[in-house]
Amino acid sequence: EETEIERLVAKCDAFDVVWINVIGLADLDLIRLIGKTFNIHQLTLEDINNIHQRAKYENFEEYDYFITRMARFDADIENRIETEQLSIILMDKFVLTFQLIEVDCLDPVRRRLKEKSGLIRERGNDYLVYALIDSVIDHYFPIVDQLGDRVTDFDDALQKDETTVSAIEVHQVRRELLSLARLIRPHREMLSRILREPSRFSAQTRLFLNDCMDHALQLGETIETNREICSDLRSYHLALIGNRTNDVMKTLTIVSTIFIPLSFIAGLYGMNFEYMPELKWKLGYFAALGAMAAVAVSLLAWFRSRGWFGT
Amino acid sequence: EETEIERLVAKCDAFDVVWINVIGLADLDLIRLIGKTFNIHQLTLEDINNIHQRAKYENFEEYDYFITRMARFDADIENRIETEQLSIILMDKFVLTFQLIEVDCLDPVRRRLKEKSGLIRERGNDYLVYALIDSVIDHYFPIVDQLGDRVTDFDDALQKDETTVSAIEVHQVRRELLSLARLIRPHREMLSRILREPSRFSAQTRLFLNDCMDHALQLGETIETNREICSDLRSYHLALIGNRTNDVMKTLTIVSTIFIPLSFIAGLYGMNFEYMPELKWKLGYFAALGAMAAVAVSLLAWFRSRGWFGT
Amino acid sequence: EETEIERLVAKCDAFDVVWINVIGLADLDLIRLIGKTFNIHQLTLEDINNIHQRAKYENFEEYDYFITRMARFDADIENRIETEQLSIILMDKFVLTFQLIEVDCLDPVRRRLKEKSGLIRERGNDYLVYALIDSVIDHYFPIVDQLGDRVTDFDDALQKDETTVSAIEVHQVRRELLSLARLIRPHREMLSRILREPSRFSAQTRLFLNDCMDHALQLGETIETNREICSDLRSYHLALIGNRTNDVMKTLTIVSTIFIPLSFIAGLYGMNFEYMPELKWKLGYFAALGAMAAVAVSLLAWFRSRGWFGT
Amino acid sequence: EETEIERLVAKCDAFDVVWINVIGLADLDLIRLIGKTFNIHQLTLEDINNIHQRAKYENFEEYDYFITRMARFDADIENRIETEQLSIILMDKFVLTFQLIEVDCLDPVRRRLKEKSGLIRERGNDYLVYALIDSVIDHYFPIVDQLGDRVTDFDDALQKDETTVSAIEVHQVRRELLSLARLIRPHREMLSRILREPSRFSAQTRLFLNDCMDHALQLGETIETNREICSDLRSYHLALIGNRTNDVMKTLTIVSTIFIPLSFIAGLYGMNFEYMPELKWKLGYFAALGAMAAVAVSLLAWFRSRGWFGT
Amino acid sequence: EETEIERLVAKCDAFDVVWINVIGLADLDLIRLIGKTFNIHQLTLEDINNIHQRAKYENFEEYDYFITRMARFDADIENRIETEQLSIILMDKFVLTFQLIEVDCLDPVRRRLKEKSGLIRERGNDYLVYALIDSVIDHYFPIVDQLGDRVTDFDDALQKDETTVSAIEVHQVRRELLSLARLIRPHREMLSRILREPSRFSAQTRLFLNDCMDHALQLGETIETNREICSDLRSYHLALIGNRTNDVMKTLTIVSTIFIPLSFIAGLYGMNFEYMPELKWKLGYFAALGAMAAVAVSLLAWFRSRGWFGT
Repeated sequence: EETEIERLVAKCDAFDVVWINVIGLADLDLIRLIGKTFNIHQLTLEDINNIHQRAKYENFEEYDYFITRMARFDADIENRIETEQLSIILMDKFVLTFQLIEVDCLDPVRRRLKEKSGLIRERGNDYLVYALIDSVIDHYFPIVDQLGDRVTDFDDALQKDETTVSAIEVHQVRRELLSLARLIRPHREMLSRILREPSRFSAQTRLFLNDCMDHALQLGETIETNREICSDLRSYHLALIGNRTNDVMKTLTIVSTIFIPLSFIAGLYGMNFEYMPELKWKLGYFAALGAMAAVAVSLLAWFRSRGWFGT
Repeated sequence: EETEIERLVAKCDAFDVVWINVIGLADLDLIRLIGKTFNIHQLTLEDINNIHQRAKYENFEEYDYFITRMARFDADIENRIETEQLSIILMDKFVLTFQLIEVDCLDPVRRRLKEKSGLIRERGNDYLVYALIDSVIDHYFPIVDQLGDRVTDFDDALQKDETTVSAIEVHQVRRELLSLARLIRPHREMLSRILREPSRFSAQTRLFLNDCMDHALQLGETIETNREICSDLRSYHLALIGNRTNDVMKTLTIVSTIFIPLSFIAGLYGMNFEYMPELKWKLGYFAALGAMAAVAVSLLAWFRSRGWFGT
Repeated sequence: EETEIERLVAKCDAFDVVWINVIGLADLDLIRLIGKTFNIHQLTLEDINNIHQRAKYENFEEYDYFITRMARFDADIENRIETEQLSIILMDKFVLTFQLIEVDCLDPVRRRLKEKSGLIRERGNDYLVYALIDSVIDHYFPIVDQLGDRVTDFDDALQKDETTVSAIEVHQVRRELLSLARLIRPHREMLSRILREPSRFSAQTRLFLNDCMDHALQLGETIETNREICSDLRSYHLALIGNRTNDVMKTLTIVSTIFIPLSFIAGLYGMNFEYMPELKWKLGYFAALGAMAAVAVSLLAWFRSRGWFGT
Repeated sequence: EETEIERLVAKCDAFDVVWINVIGLADLDLIRLIGKTFNIHQLTLEDINNIHQRAKYENFEEYDYFITRMARFDADIENRIETEQLSIILMDKFVLTFQLIEVDCLDPVRRRLKEKSGLIRERGNDYLVYALIDSVIDHYFPIVDQLGDRVTDFDDALQKDETTVSAIEVHQVRRELLSLARLIRPHREMLSRILREPSRFSAQTRLFLNDCMDHALQLGETIETNREICSDLRSYHLALIGNRTNDVMKTLTIVSTIFIPLSFIAGLYGMNFEYMPELKWKLGYFAALGAMAAVAVSLLAWFRSRGWFGT
Repeated sequence: EETEIERLVAKCDAFDVVWINVIGLADLDLIRLIGKTFNIHQLTLEDINNIHQRAKYENFEEYDYFITRMARFDADIENRIETEQLSIILMDKFVLTFQLIEVDCLDPVRRRLKEKSGLIRERGNDYLVYALIDSVIDHYFPIVDQLGDRVTDFDDALQKDETTVSAIEVHQVRRELLSLARLIRPHREMLSRILREPSRFSAQTRLFLNDCMDHALQLGETIETNREICSDLRSYHLALIGNRTNDVMKTLTIVSTIFIPLSFIAGLYGMNFEYMPELKWKLGYFAALGAMAAVAVSLLAWFRSRGWFGT
């Protein structure tokens, strides 16, 4: 097998831009062999195999090493975000990428490489690496937008019909925004370091990376804004609940406060004492009814004066 | 058409300050042609056509490129803020601007150019670009002020009549302030970079840009302050709701707690047992009434001692 | 009039320190004339006339320009803070100040100039400017202290008698602290820039400006601390309300939960069925009373076991 | 005893990498003796004995001094985190470590030293120190992960069955995350200073330390994220409680508001007035029942119209 | 008197380290005299007399000036923290300290000077100043620890017995932590500036100051952590109150909801209509009792199905 890789590498000498895409990391021997062939540092090999890392950029003598994380919605569970690590090694003559499974977000780059036979091929390895990173970052947009749409839906729902949005949904979206923010922040740091430090990227390509950085910034800001809206929605929701409880309480209080005294009066004349003068009166019953009406009306007036019928 | 543009450009040689304002971005061929004529980088052309970007500043070899966002209230929907992207390219001999629709906030600049035939014409292209950016920033003031007025109205309303402001309105204003803050922050970063880095702006014009920066800072601060007041209002609103619920509860509790025992006493003597000595007593009825009065008075005294009639 | 100013200026040649204090900004021609006489940049003149600016410092070739804001309590409305802009121009031979109305906080400086005929006169224009800025900053102390006292009063009141402080007062003070913080922050930035950058201030005077910076820092911190205490008070207030509602609820629940079953028993034997054996019993009435007492006592015991009589 | 240590040290001359691991700090004389033998500064000796310090790095002329804190779950009390201070001194020829008790997290290093007889032995003292620090940091991962799992469990529980998670558990985890964050932050600062400043670490080893820094960053972020989720859970919990109270209130209000008027009607006709015309009516009883049904139905309709049966 | 001081100073020529400790600041003439004798700047004299300043460090040509604040618990009022300003002037040949009252926290330094006759005397004035600052900082530890213990007590109490801690106590401790944080932050800034800038401290002493800085950092972190725990406790407390209110409400609702319908049935058959067929039935009474039991049981079943008897 060794000879096979070496023979392959030898053949590549003819090309200016060579992208070797390794899919599957289970065969440790193969990874080690590739590492040896391309003179890759042991730490980098460990990073490639440890697939739960944050995006980062490291400058080695013989190559630049990038970790990026590709995100997509889970195919099975709705709204669950899945990520996969893509390791990129930029050497003078090669670009090596490593990923665990075949599903990725690099097809736009592959298509451009096959179709427009120009641009990437002309501009060298560093431009290819830019194209890969750019493709990874751009694939965050639909995810962030989808979450943003859900937040906007919540907001609209709350403003129209108060009860549609449950706290649990806002909580879920907020949590996913949190994990997205945590994915994107390291990419921003990575790009910022690439742009700040001397590296294998030409001034040409740096202009494009700048653009990529803009996208990362925009992603970060959109997420931050949506997270803030979520916590605003939460506060608003709490206020709504408080208002509703207040409303329910008022109903109960009005009804109870009016009828409890009336029932008391009724109870009073339901007593069986032998000597109760009012019971003998001709108009006793109507007097009692009148007293009840008077109590009810004055209580209602008092409630009105306190503004309980206002809103 | 090509010749037309080139002929136009050739004619401009005679002028010191030339402002070409492109309105409408639908005709991609035309944009590409302009790009070719003026030697504009592909990335810039993409940025011009992608009209959902944050304000930024990019230094290219042959020109400086600025994206700004013009904001105005939507003509149709009340209190909805709309934005439009204005791309500005500052070259040694030309100023190019690109916008999607004709409505903009640059009329003050146009008027000054036509009327006072001086100042801008004298001071060169960089001053014209300053005037454009300044005009964009200045148009945020009435919007921010209007939102600030609404916040102040809420605050005044809460302090006078507790129930006028609904949580939903505060929530809406806070959300709009959030999106405004998100629009203005990149402008501030843009101006800060222009002032920090070497660029096509003369020391003269930089003084004016400094002024512009001051305005952007002031906008940012006003928004921040209003956002803080909004969240203070929200907290205050929550406390009010809590207070009101407490108030309603107290009314209910006082009425219930007094009448429930009284009703019990009345119920007691409403029982139909054959042998109930109190019922035969001459003053049984009045004794019962007296007991009820005693219970009521002592409960009222207890409530007063707990301060429930205080506020 | 022109000659008058020029004649005045000419006369000033004899003095080392000359302070020209312009009160009233309505006469635009006069301002423009002064601007021309002293060679003041158009931007500065605009800043002088635009009286709603934040404190700032600008270094021009021929002078240093400072905006400060003087604060005082409104004479008419209690606890309302008013501010006025004081523009200071420090030139090699002159100090110019501009203000809208005559009321200001510079009297201490004027008095020192008149009385102690020394110090300021000796130390030159830059020391005079320091004295002016210092006087402006020092006048914030009584305002901040007065607000701090109100916060402390609230805190003490809450700790002694729970109901004296209303949420609205805390809200008002917090809002005023916010606007004060917004006034003082730019002064701090201004002083920090003066101390950092080369300017017309001698090393001597810088020591004094350092002192002034200390005061500004202390003001900022006091405000921040008071704002934090205010939001602590707010949280505490919310907890109190919650506690009180809980207390009220407990009272209601204890009374209701005890008497509702008792009333039910009474109601039971108030029914008019022809065949109700208990009614005929000799001790039926007392048995019913006994049952009621048993119910009441066991409910009370249950409440006690849940700790509802604890606090 | 002195001679014994000196003899030991003398013997070590033959080896490139020498690690002296001092366990137990009770024998102050011994510590002082070691200090004298290896020329250790008095401040370092004090730091070694004062076992409640935060991680730090200090550069002395003759050695670099590191304090790290090893964390593990308490063997006796569930979920309680215990820490122990590990002091590391890196000299040109020796690595000295000091710890209070024998239990530590350095076994992986010891094993590697014994087994793979290579790597650490080859790379010198600085690599050994890296291996020690790395081992300390890596031992935080299972702890942070365990806490993260508990947070995730809470989150899942809340989303499935609303009542399983109590506020007290979230509060405890949040508190432990806080103390973990406080442990890890100084390690991050320590590593950052080592990487920034010139020190005894070779460029080789710095690559590895960089990796270690990545781990520390990742730990910090995981903790931060979990802490945020905890406070989100708390808010969510509050909303749930509010919702539940609202729900309970609604039940009470519906039942009370329907039956209180009905009971009042019943009470009305339970009065014993001699002259009550309705009582004589043939259909009086059924009319009363009908009136009650009408009241109940209209109240139910009103509740439905207010959406109280919605969720 | 003048001669007396000068004579004293002259005598000091023989010593390397001279500490002059001025207690009491009322005698302004004396302070001015000392100022003149030692060539102290007017600003420093003002600072010495103005005893409400934050800790700071100022570098003058002839001396370094430090303000520190010593804290201790008030002797009379429990848990009240008192502070006193200690001004330190470090000259080449003298160390001057100024304080208002005799009570201070410098006794450890005095004792070391008297007893161990070594160390401080050997190491010069700068080490003495370090010892003074160190002593001031170290005296914050018992105060911070005591507050930390109270916070821990609250936490433990809340976790065991929910009702022991009142919101007011948490509020007080949080407030005191806030004022402590405000005291310590300037000390940290002071130390950081001393370590960063060139000053009269030898490289030797700087090592010790570094240690002192570590202590200040640790104090700041402990305070911050405790403040966070306090606000966690507050949130937790709010949740507890909410839970308790919910609990009380549930009890009320269960009892009311069961007995109100039962009482209604009882009331129904307490009506005095002449024609009520059920009243004549032989088993009418028992049928009514059966109906009541059926209602009660089905309501209890419904509550159980909603999980109201869960926790």
